[in-house]
Amino acid sequence: MEPTTESELLVKIDEGIATATLNRAAKRNALSLELLASLESELNSIADNPDVRVVVLQAAGPVFSSGHDLKQMIDRSADEYSALFTQCAATMQRLRTIPQPVIAQVQGLATAAGCQLVASCDLAIASENAWFATPGVKIGLFCTTPMVPLVRSLPPKIAMEMLLTGDPLSAQRAYDLGFINRVVSIEELEAATLEMARKIASASRETIAIGKQAFYQQASLSESEAYGQAVEVMTQNSLHGDAQEGIQAFLEKRTPVWNQ
Amino acid sequence: MEPTTESELLVKIDEGIATATLNRAAKRNALSLELLASLESELNSIADNPDVRVVVLQAAGPVFSSGHDLKQMIDRSADEYSALFTQCAATMQRLRTIPQPVIAQVQGLATAAGCQLVASCDLAIASENAWFATPGVKIGLFCTTPMVPLVRSLPPKIAMEMLLTGDPLSAQRAYDLGFINRVVSIEELEAATLEMARKIASASRETIAIGKQAFYQQASLSESEAYGQAVEVMTQNSLHGDAQEGIQAFLEKRTPVWNQ
Amino acid sequence: MEPTTESELLVKIDEGIATATLNRAAKRNALSLELLASLESELNSIADNPDVRVVVLQAAGPVFSSGHDLKQMIDRSADEYSALFTQCAATMQRLRTIPQPVIAQVQGLATAAGCQLVASCDLAIASENAWFATPGVKIGLFCTTPMVPLVRSLPPKIAMEMLLTGDPLSAQRAYDLGFINRVVSIEELEAATLEMARKIASASRETIAIGKQAFYQQASLSESEAYGQAVEVMTQNSLHGDAQEGIQAFLEKRTPVWNQ
Repeated sequence: MEPTTESELLVKIDEGIATATLNRAAKRNALSLELLASLESELNSIADNPDVRVVVLQAAGPVFSSGHDLKQMIDRSADEYSALFTQCAATMQRLRTIPQPVIAQVQGLATAAGCQLVASCDLAIASENAWFATPGVKIGLFCTTPMVPLVRSLPPKIAMEMLLTGDPLSAQRAYDLGFINRVVSIEELEAATLEMARKIASASRETIAIGKQAFYQQASLSESEAYGQAVEVMTQNSLHGDAQEGIQAFLEKRTPVWNQ
Repeated sequence: MEPTTESELLVKIDEGIATATLNRAAKRNALSLELLASLESELNSIADNPDVRVVVLQAAGPVFSSGHDLKQMIDRSADEYSALFTQCAATMQRLRTIPQPVIAQVQGLATAAGCQLVASCDLAIASENAWFATPGVKIGLFCTTPMVPLVRSLPPKIAMEMLLTGDPLSAQRAYDLGFINRVVSIEELEAATLEMARKIASASRETIAIGKQAFYQQASLSESEAYGQAVEVMTQNSLHGDAQEGIQAFLEKRTPVWNQ
Repeated sequence: MEPTTESELLVKIDEGIATATLNRAAKRNALSLELLASLESELNSIADNPDVRVVVLQAAGPVFSSGHDLKQMIDRSADEYSALFTQCAATMQRLRTIPQPVIAQVQGLATAAGCQLVASCDLAIASENAWFATPGVKIGLFCTTPMVPLVRSLPPKIAMEMLLTGDPLSAQRAYDLGFINRVVSIEELEAATLEMARKIASASRETIAIGKQAFYQQASLSESEAYGQAVEVMTQNSLHGDAQEGIQAFLEKRTPVWNQ
């Protein structure tokens, strides 16, 4: 595997916000094996970077991402396909496991693995012209891995329609169904995303990390198992300096000062 | 068990689309034990029929289906009740396990096991005058088996309200919550369903079968378990002739020709 | 633990409807350890009371509930925090396990454990000015236990936004997403809740109890496991006198007379 040239994935860090930009606009931000590996690698760095409190995942050009690079998907061996989908699944799951929340900032089309990328982020803000689709069925390749986070974010018949027909979901319908957090005009997209990022960046980094981890860990448990785990997590969180400071500040009607 | 007369369930196959019609309009398409067994049997035949690429499940008359035949539910033995609900559960689950997608075409009321039938189909299109209800509570018999697919398709408080009060969900509210895929006027119902069926029938039969099976198999897994399974399924799908043809056709900007 | 004075939680029973009122309006109905224990205790009594067929949970004053009592959350030991969250989880889960349905009647803010209380009820009706929030993140203490029922009632990105930003969900958005059953004006709130309660109170108590229990027991099962359980439950329900009476009454077009 050749390393991605830096320019295909741009990362800048400012005021606690890491902005990762898919920068293959000429290729509709296709998620090549290299770009997926590069994104996972950047997420690893971000996970360990105490200066990053929140991540914005955005894309250059009119299309958010068209999914896999189809030229990498023809006439390959089982091992090559497996390597590609394994990398894809690893990158998508890394979005869940890094301690910082990740906000997808989506303009234009997000299709196949590009739609999966949005589904895999913790939060998503889209412009009014955004569309979400899993059209693999049209090329004989069902979007089976994109399906995994999709069916965990949408009612089953809606996800099934997307998967069986390839028809796109509009930004407005995606909002109505709770698949995305906000729909704004294309002009407001960056500002609205930044506003949400800043709000999260103003919280205790440690508290956010505890909460994000607990969120995904309990997702597939029964409610009573989830409570067992949640009581332990919340007890430990309460003893943490930032919680003590936060409650004290609230009772004293002042702004808290976080350790982390 | 007496065999259902053919006229209570009509099946025709045309252009890859099997249309199954509940044909007990005078009985509000009540799902007698015989009709449920007959539907399961037809689904078995369809599953093995390579000419069928998609199924439309519709109903004659103004009511989609009023659920079980209450005359079969009074003064029976435990074995008889168990046989009825076991057959019902088997038919409903067969809708999930046949390789072809099933679209419910719903006009008027779909109540109790009739509502369950809609919830159990992969997709559903309803007319504006359609209503969905699980009113068993009103006759002292909680809609416990209809609940099973219902709670997997609707938010818990909405499903709970339907089950506890028997009050119906309108087609529009069902659409807003993602329980159904489309709401159209009664005049457009058949055409809208046929349009969706034709779209699915134009895809590779093998690809659709792989995807539908994967969809339900991963539904109750954790996300990471689901990814493990999905990576394998998608690797095998990629090696399939229809995927290779589909990708090649896409790169060559031509229409694919499926083997299956 | 000191017993709560009776006036902090009022319970009256009338026409089969138990109305429990959080009565700490001056403290924004904060859920102190004592109030949570008192609520659990009342739920235990209600569970065993054959005269109660449905429960309405309401709150005095302009705020439904602001969550835990923050004065009980500063400078405590691990054991004390654990005891508080254990009690909270027990009370919330008791709402699920009592045989009678519980309807939350929500005006104004329902935050943190107050939002959890709404999520934990079987049904909820809210006034137009109601808001739901999990703002623990603002005081450094992630709403981890409120998250448990929240993520089981809302799409993941919506729950995540509430948890990561503390921003409130409006009553209308909550309705659109199926988190609550109805939104009405503040003037209509009590009447709308009572109407739903009366409808449930008119059903067979035994049938309702069977159904509510089955609802939560199957929630984390796979669909086929859930069917296995549901077929047994529905068979037993069918043999019950109230089901036989209900079906007979329906066939005879008369009002059923329940034994229970």
